[in-house]
Amino acid sequence: MPESVTTEPHRIREIRVTPVAFRDLPLLNVVGVHEPFALRAIIEIVTDSGLVGLGETYGDAGHLDRLRLAAAQLIDVDVWDVNEIARRVQVTLAADTSKTGHGMSGMVTGSSTADRVLSPFEVACLDIQGHAIGRPVSDLLGGAVRDRVDYSAYLFYKWAGHPGAEEDHWGAALAPDQLVAQARRMIDEYGFSAIKLKGGVFPPDEEIEAIRALRRAFPDHPLRIDPNGAWTVRTSIRVGKELDGVLEYLEDPTPGVDGMAEVAREVSMPLATNMCVVAFDHVKPAVAQDAVGVVLSDHHFWGGLGRSRVLAGICDTFGLGLSMHSNSHLGISLAAMTHLAAATPNLSYACDTHWPWKAADEDVVVPGALRFEQGAVPVPTGPGLGVELDRDALARLHEQYLSSGIRERDDTGYMRRAQPDFDPTAPRW
Amino acid sequence: MPESVTTEPHRIREIRVTPVAFRDLPLLNVVGVHEPFALRAIIEIVTDSGLVGLGETYGDAGHLDRLRLAAAQLIDVDVWDVNEIARRVQVTLAADTSKTGHGMSGMVTGSSTADRVLSPFEVACLDIQGHAIGRPVSDLLGGAVRDRVDYSAYLFYKWAGHPGAEEDHWGAALAPDQLVAQARRMIDEYGFSAIKLKGGVFPPDEEIEAIRALRRAFPDHPLRIDPNGAWTVRTSIRVGKELDGVLEYLEDPTPGVDGMAEVAREVSMPLATNMCVVAFDHVKPAVAQDAVGVVLSDHHFWGGLGRSRVLAGICDTFGLGLSMHSNSHLGISLAAMTHLAAATPNLSYACDTHWPWKAADEDVVVPGALRFEQGAVPVPTGPGLGVELDRDALARLHEQYLSSGIRERDDTGYMRRAQPDFDPTAPRW
Repeated sequence: MPESVTTEPHRIREIRVTPVAFRDLPLLNVVGVHEPFALRAIIEIVTDSGLVGLGETYGDAGHLDRLRLAAAQLIDVDVWDVNEIARRVQVTLAADTSKTGHGMSGMVTGSSTADRVLSPFEVACLDIQGHAIGRPVSDLLGGAVRDRVDYSAYLFYKWAGHPGAEEDHWGAALAPDQLVAQARRMIDEYGFSAIKLKGGVFPPDEEIEAIRALRRAFPDHPLRIDPNGAWTVRTSIRVGKELDGVLEYLEDPTPGVDGMAEVAREVSMPLATNMCVVAFDHVKPAVAQDAVGVVLSDHHFWGGLGRSRVLAGICDTFGLGLSMHSNSHLGISLAAMTHLAAATPNLSYACDTHWPWKAADEDVVVPGALRFEQGAVPVPTGPGLGVELDRDALARLHEQYLSSGIRERDDTGYMRRAQPDFDPTAPRW
Repeated sequence: MPESVTTEPHRIREIRVTPVAFRDLPLLNVVGVHEPFALRAIIEIVTDSGLVGLGETYGDAGHLDRLRLAAAQLIDVDVWDVNEIARRVQVTLAADTSKTGHGMSGMVTGSSTADRVLSPFEVACLDIQGHAIGRPVSDLLGGAVRDRVDYSAYLFYKWAGHPGAEEDHWGAALAPDQLVAQARRMIDEYGFSAIKLKGGVFPPDEEIEAIRALRRAFPDHPLRIDPNGAWTVRTSIRVGKELDGVLEYLEDPTPGVDGMAEVAREVSMPLATNMCVVAFDHVKPAVAQDAVGVVLSDHHFWGGLGRSRVLAGICDTFGLGLSMHSNSHLGISLAAMTHLAAATPNLSYACDTHWPWKAADEDVVVPGALRFEQGAVPVPTGPGLGVELDRDALARLHEQYLSSGIRERDDTGYMRRAQPDFDPTAPRW
């Protein structure tokens, strides 16, 4: 056998946590409306060997505090020692029981604090591992089983523009025909072959009408609706029955495992969730009640790419489908999601992404590494995540963060500026 | 960022499957007695880049056929593309429904054929990956959380020697005092801090007496007994109650998930299994019935080290304990088991190993890389598995395989030469 390559250790010398803000559009959901800027945090891990790895996560102030607290404990750890990194994050945050600052505006509150904080560090370590050995991250996850990852057209009800601002380039989407036009434009531009509607905004009958209109306009596209738990069990069952044969899956119609289990018994389509099963602790009770048919995984709160593969194995073992959830994100997250999905054989649904809602000129990665073709992102084949940090862009988006004044995602507060009596309580109908 | 190392692809050029036989002692179990030779197959994967990776698995004729069938389909695959290797093995063996030739003498028949065949190829690929990047396999599994892996003293009832041969160096163990002497010697020599007795050989009351004698002699050693499903539900409950507070866990007292679930409801100690949950398909029904408390994992039938980590994640998620099963094995397997256990945080029990039963002068790896210290194997820190193939030894053990005449493990057939009316049917008591 020839002499092995002996790579030096890659110990963590420094971790930079940079909050950024990028322009967002007034997208409506059950808890309110997206503010003019979405927040993210960009993680750079620098090793003593001079390699840099990238991660991306939520940018809320509480989360930033936790990231920095944990980061300080990771100095000198080898980037291959992800188990040790996970242990240190866990120990550091063991006493943190705060349920705020999760970056999801109160919609997903039960995810594991340790897993949420671990995630961007783990991704950055995998990025470094990949660079160190000249392999894409998908190879570190067992190898890409597909060279393109399908994403879905993620439709939102939206205002024409932010209050006091001009109409944005997507315009209003408050009625079925406007959603159909939104879908048409998004599919023309990106080639998506599945459609998801963020619901929970209007009374269910209006949203049923929207789904029917989408079905007429796109007879061959799998359809999904996600009201984020806006409906009672009874309403969920009624909607499920009315949309029998129309939906690929029904996402989080009602809050909680008990309610989901009740609905699941009465409707024909699988129920999907990224609200009632968002941590490993939630899996056993959900399985016991047969409450969900599809888990919408998300490496940002499931502890990174390695732990998301364990989740994939659990889904495979327990006969659960697997799809992927998204929040507003930049290119580092899209690259990580794409590598993970590529290396996960049973992740067979088109994944969610907010990508079309992001301004094309705003990102922290150098353009060109990520692109959509026929609704899919070709899996980067370069080392690591395959994306490169654009330091000027990072500085610009950090300045934008500073000047935005936004420190916590607050869809509800923003909505109340337009509609002071807005009540985000769910279920609502 | 400095230029990344660009490693060349490591495509599989050749796979060698070499059956070997090594001397074994007349160890008794529920289906009979170990023959004078134990069989294994040694896998060498050679890449076009000239690296060689090692795997070890069962040596039964049926398994060898399957290994060779699958190996032929793996040429040109990159060793990082374990997902593709798994897919090809699955496709190749999709039509194979044979339940024979599994290397476990009929005791474990429900494991997945594809996972059993995949395992040594996956281990060999990880060995190559480790050599290619100068890292131990434990790093490829997330990093060692411990630098030594504890193993248990694995006691067997045994004859003094093989029929017609002289008494071996361990001598007879057919009564409690002989087992205590066996344990004493094994612990003196290896330093084990836990004790497992292979039961199912004598009527349960005799085995209870043996456990009590071991408890008296070793008051601080966790104790386990494994009758391989020899007992009825009723007997299992009785034994479990009699050994309340004495056993760390009770292994496979009775066959099948239904029976195990019945026993589990009535006894205080956890039930462990490497018989009724031996494939991913078995997990869901076992969890639904709360049938087992500890899964005895075994990468040889759970599809290799990566899939064993998924199993570990499942156990963690569903509140199951995790320990490790062993068959008669050589050094490649011990190295793989040790890396896996080292990188699996929740594998917290001392693992099983047949190591002390193997002649010290028989192995296929160059001596020195693996050793026992205070009952534990220090995790190899060299690249890959950290063991090197001894080609002369491999040739010798292959010659021994050829001359042994043994082609299938057949504990029952061998027992019947001494006791023609021996009936391996379980449950027996």
